[in-house]
Amino acid sequence: MTSNPFPVVDIHTHMYPPEYVKILENRSDIPLIRRFAGAKDPRYIILPAEAESLDKAGEDGAPLPGRPVTSHYSSLQQKIHFMDTHRIDISVISLANPWLDFVATSEAASTAVSVNEEFESMCASQPGRLYFFATLPLTAPQGELLSAIDFVKGLKHCRGVILGTSGLGKGLDDPELIPVFKALAKNGLTIFLHPHYGLPSEVWGPRATAEYGHVLPLALGFPLETTIAVARMYLAGVFDEVPDLRMLLAHSGGTLPFLAGRIESCIVHDGHLVREGKVGSGRRTVWQVLKEQIYLDAVIYSEVGLKAAIDASGVDRLMFGTDHPFFPPLTSDEQGEWESMTWNKTAVEKALGEGSEGTKAVMGGNAVKILRLSEDA
Amino acid sequence: MTSNPFPVVDIHTHMYPPEYVKILENRSDIPLIRRFAGAKDPRYIILPAEAESLDKAGEDGAPLPGRPVTSHYSSLQQKIHFMDTHRIDISVISLANPWLDFVATSEAASTAVSVNEEFESMCASQPGRLYFFATLPLTAPQGELLSAIDFVKGLKHCRGVILGTSGLGKGLDDPELIPVFKALAKNGLTIFLHPHYGLPSEVWGPRATAEYGHVLPLALGFPLETTIAVARMYLAGVFDEVPDLRMLLAHSGGTLPFLAGRIESCIVHDGHLVREGKVGSGRRTVWQVLKEQIYLDAVIYSEVGLKAAIDASGVDRLMFGTDHPFFPPLTSDEQGEWESMTWNKTAVEKALGEGSEGTKAVMGGNAVKILRLSEDA
Repeated sequence: MTSNPFPVVDIHTHMYPPEYVKILENRSDIPLIRRFAGAKDPRYIILPAEAESLDKAGEDGAPLPGRPVTSHYSSLQQKIHFMDTHRIDISVISLANPWLDFVATSEAASTAVSVNEEFESMCASQPGRLYFFATLPLTAPQGELLSAIDFVKGLKHCRGVILGTSGLGKGLDDPELIPVFKALAKNGLTIFLHPHYGLPSEVWGPRATAEYGHVLPLALGFPLETTIAVARMYLAGVFDEVPDLRMLLAHSGGTLPFLAGRIESCIVHDGHLVREGKVGSGRRTVWQVLKEQIYLDAVIYSEVGLKAAIDASGVDRLMFGTDHPFFPPLTSDEQGEWESMTWNKTAVEKALGEGSEGTKAVMGGNAVKILRLSEDA
Repeated sequence: MTSNPFPVVDIHTHMYPPEYVKILENRSDIPLIRRFAGAKDPRYIILPAEAESLDKAGEDGAPLPGRPVTSHYSSLQQKIHFMDTHRIDISVISLANPWLDFVATSEAASTAVSVNEEFESMCASQPGRLYFFATLPLTAPQGELLSAIDFVKGLKHCRGVILGTSGLGKGLDDPELIPVFKALAKNGLTIFLHPHYGLPSEVWGPRATAEYGHVLPLALGFPLETTIAVARMYLAGVFDEVPDLRMLLAHSGGTLPFLAGRIESCIVHDGHLVREGKVGSGRRTVWQVLKEQIYLDAVIYSEVGLKAAIDASGVDRLMFGTDHPFFPPLTSDEQGEWESMTWNKTAVEKALGEGSEGTKAVMGGNAVKILRLSEDA
């Protein structure tokens, strides 16, 4: 498929390989997968608000918590069907949140090996169509964590790693992570930064859980979490300390393109930072880091947001994605067209023009170049 | 000054009248104003992170908490000087956060009367140059709160009210607020929605307080708080229930223009909302509410964000602002030019073209029309 001069590439698309599903099925705390009597599919329960109703779930017609684990989660055949239905040539698949963040220290490294090998084997079975972002054993001792980076760089279809915002437990501005970032940068492995933890649930207010579904934590909590994580890395100087670090931000950077101006203003007007000499003339601005070390996906569902993302990072740094298998259609056939594809594709075409060079770049050309998707395929 | 066919209007500009400063000086919990030995100006301490260091403040050369209360906070002469320096014809002034949110129930109504009369008298003393957003006694019994709306609508220079996100304590999606919103709408009083509470401080991580100054709570916490508040109102159906409600969102809507697409996607893909029949064909989308009931200020410090705000709400719904007296210049004369003016003005000119109709509209024309600033001046 890479002979197609204008391939469509989906860089934000998740898989739950069977090995990982088993781990989730054996858990009693979130994240977990549980079967309920009378329900066709098991349910994946991931958000704190969903766990609250876990004990009463299924009783007296109470709605089931979480979301159904359909064949879209684990079936490679289903992923290929989704790609074919939506004319996606190449997918760069990744484990979905919360990855291995919850795995015990002693089991993390071996679990990561088995998950990453499962991803490599899926990619190898579909020549030219699949690459992947590997999963890191963040709860493992640092030596094992660095070894895991060595291991995944040797996997033929691995092009980077997917990373949450908790890092080793203290966030991505934790100095202990610098060797990890350096090892990833040295090996040309792009970090796909993805949210999971959202915001403390009290910010959604007393009506949210019962009345607003998952809208607030997913629509606002996720992008805000990403924005906070990357702003903390910026303020900690991580991008300067690891100049070869390359980071792809989920959901078009959360809200970073929109708020970069305010972040800059707050920095140059901050008494503490000015006194510490951190606002000098040598400082690289957020705008520079956006254009030099950050890539954004195009999962933003409107041309308004997409244009801001393009303005912030440049049309050569955006990459199309779908977030499959999340957000399935609820009122039409799951095997048919998904709005996660059509809304995001329409946004690109409205922002850049149907068939334009810019649209071709965002829809696939950028990903092929940035993630070297024509190699070894 | 309103005879100027292209006036520059600042609709986001705060004052702390002497009466209000006295209240803050008498408090021992944040928000408070305190004097420290050897410091020229008293300090205004407002953020939880600043209160943590209050006990040790000033000892052994430890930096003073909060920010200096300079003449820019309370002096009308200084406000006029700022306006003249930056060629601002008209300012729509408002009390700054946290307004009267902390005032005891029994004192709220009378405090609001005295603060609002002080604002009216400031405006009357500068014919044609000042209007104001009044302050509501939200902790007062509802009867007194509704009377306060009746009172301020009779003040000649009042054009709306400034409102925080806590409402009566449960947020702006609290059904108890509907009569308040209806009374404001009926009287043609625009709500200026402004953040104060930010996000729970744990989201900034262990390094924030000591190392990143106020950047994260101000640059991210504030706009995220506004976005959450307005999203909750939208999901609660407030905009449908009070169709004449008009709301001006601080900081270009927080992040609403950028995230509106994702909010829409999360709504139509939410199982709970679909089951409840809330995603039917009659639903007004976030985009429609943005264009029909919401105004945005232009306090976003970059043309990237400003363009998204214009794309989301329309060029006829944006209004210029400075956030004076916050964010004073730290490395140049406070009596000279402020970047809060120049960055935001440059953003408008870059987005819409210097001297263009759009620029004139955003810089002042919209405010004159929307807030009726040529009346009674």
